[in-house]
Amino acid sequence: MRVSYHELHDTLFRALAKTGLAPERAALCARLIADASRDGVESHGLNLVPRLLTNIRAGVVDVHARATCASRHGAIERWDGRRGPGNLNAYDAMDGAIALARAHGLGCVALSNTNHWMRGGTYGWQAADAGVIGVCWTNTMPNLPPWGADTPRIGNNPLVIGVPRPEGHVVLDMAMSQFSYGALASYRLRGEQLPVAGGFDRDGALTHDPAAIEASRRPLPIGFWKGSGLALMLDMAAAVLAGGRATHEILPEQETGLSQVFLAFDVAAIAGRDEGTRVVEAILADLRVRYPGERAFDARRQNLKDGIPVEPSAWRTLETAAAS
Amino acid sequence: MRVSYHELHDTLFRALAKTGLAPERAALCARLIADASRDGVESHGLNLVPRLLTNIRAGVVDVHARATCASRHGAIERWDGRRGPGNLNAYDAMDGAIALARAHGLGCVALSNTNHWMRGGTYGWQAADAGVIGVCWTNTMPNLPPWGADTPRIGNNPLVIGVPRPEGHVVLDMAMSQFSYGALASYRLRGEQLPVAGGFDRDGALTHDPAAIEASRRPLPIGFWKGSGLALMLDMAAAVLAGGRATHEILPEQETGLSQVFLAFDVAAIAGRDEGTRVVEAILADLRVRYPGERAFDARRQNLKDGIPVEPSAWRTLETAAAS
Repeated sequence: MRVSYHELHDTLFRALAKTGLAPERAALCARLIADASRDGVESHGLNLVPRLLTNIRAGVVDVHARATCASRHGAIERWDGRRGPGNLNAYDAMDGAIALARAHGLGCVALSNTNHWMRGGTYGWQAADAGVIGVCWTNTMPNLPPWGADTPRIGNNPLVIGVPRPEGHVVLDMAMSQFSYGALASYRLRGEQLPVAGGFDRDGALTHDPAAIEASRRPLPIGFWKGSGLALMLDMAAAVLAGGRATHEILPEQETGLSQVFLAFDVAAIAGRDEGTRVVEAILADLRVRYPGERAFDARRQNLKDGIPVEPSAWRTLETAAAS
Repeated sequence: MRVSYHELHDTLFRALAKTGLAPERAALCARLIADASRDGVESHGLNLVPRLLTNIRAGVVDVHARATCASRHGAIERWDGRRGPGNLNAYDAMDGAIALARAHGLGCVALSNTNHWMRGGTYGWQAADAGVIGVCWTNTMPNLPPWGADTPRIGNNPLVIGVPRPEGHVVLDMAMSQFSYGALASYRLRGEQLPVAGGFDRDGALTHDPAAIEASRRPLPIGFWKGSGLALMLDMAAAVLAGGRATHEILPEQETGLSQVFLAFDVAAIAGRDEGTRVVEAILADLRVRYPGERAFDARRQNLKDGIPVEPSAWRTLETAAAS
């Protein structure tokens, strides 16, 4: 099932405005979600909307809250997200980092007390659209056993890096687990095995079987001990800089109060005109395989032409919320 | 074979001073290398000294060069390493980032035209010793096939994150390959298989056999496509920010002209006193497995007591250079 970008955006807008979100905030929120689905990232676009609406109704997400600056020094600021909508908070925080970078060459906003940012790549594209290099990461609830343990005590803490490029930005958006639970479920529903080992089964053996990993709750960090260490450091840096919750303080039943870091580097402040573009083009010409962000760019083109695929139950939930 | 820290440092100092390195630079260079061996990272301490001496004699490393600031804007600077000793350039660059962070809360030095930084963790410990969060990475020569290709076109681009902690800093120092060539050789010499798949054999099958990966030159990026993407982004960001060479421009025969990025976050500028320490302690208390940097901390204690293990041939090379 496919809908036009306009219809998706409009339906999102109406449903979000009905929650009490101010019109210009509902419009931005709708755009960020519609863009994720348009770019082929349905899992972090429309498919997260039912959960967002539930969290708004449950009071986990406060539609009236705007993030506020809690302390600042030069190029770095600490913001309190006040449990506002996660994608709006993240967008505002990256915007803040970009503004700091315009003034100082480099800028950082560390955000506490926020909610799920939905598609992380959004903020990498946002930075790249502004012509700066963006780096951001978030912590999550405990959903990954650290290497050497068998229960989830670290988060999969997605990391995003965006580099601007006129022909299509280069944007990496990756969690520290080899496969998300969403990806495991997709493989299982298709009756497929994972292409590489994705976790341990209940007996502690590495397995390609998605159902065995869903049952054991032991997905693998990327690179085993390495991704485990990196996930830990990202959580630690986010919680220390933001003065917010670390993964071990985030309840799985209600994943809220997250800590995030947004960095922007204004390359133009130190580099010659078009210098960065030449460097990026030369790297990609040598690479000769797909680059991070290329798939999103292709999906965008395709989906704007053919309509955006929507998962029927998420779409029904959205339509109901928009009509209510 | 073990030597005292004093003897290791003194011998390094004499050998380095003989190359023409100014006395205070030779003393710093000797300390950084001796510290790496002391912390159990011989592979990136003494064992890299024969190569460093060779590169100095060959003119690849210029002992008289000091990195200079090429451009600056607020909290970010671009430095030219002028092919000076890689560890001294990196140390100076992290020092520069720390100074910028003291002034602006956050600081970045992007360094071009430098040489192998030896132990990356050095600069994470340096930042943490200064009470700031340090993040740095380097590109390398092409030594890793990107995911989807079978020849090395990306670097393993080590990434370092250091977080200060009174009881012993938390410092991650990881390359983007699952095993370095040095690690593969160590497993092979001990007659052991790798604990997890480390690359492809000549037939393109994943293997635990270190010799098969040395033969194919196809080690694995951590997390397969994920580490491949992250390595690419680190190279791209380093080359763009530093205005220096990207991995594809670095010759394997003579790994020089590297690009690196050094970031420092002055937590004290935005946080309450001891706030960061409380956050870090709570995270580590919940973790209940070894944390990044713990092994180095333990090795340091042990090696200062028992003497520092030295690889006999590297030690002989050093002694000869010191006596010549």
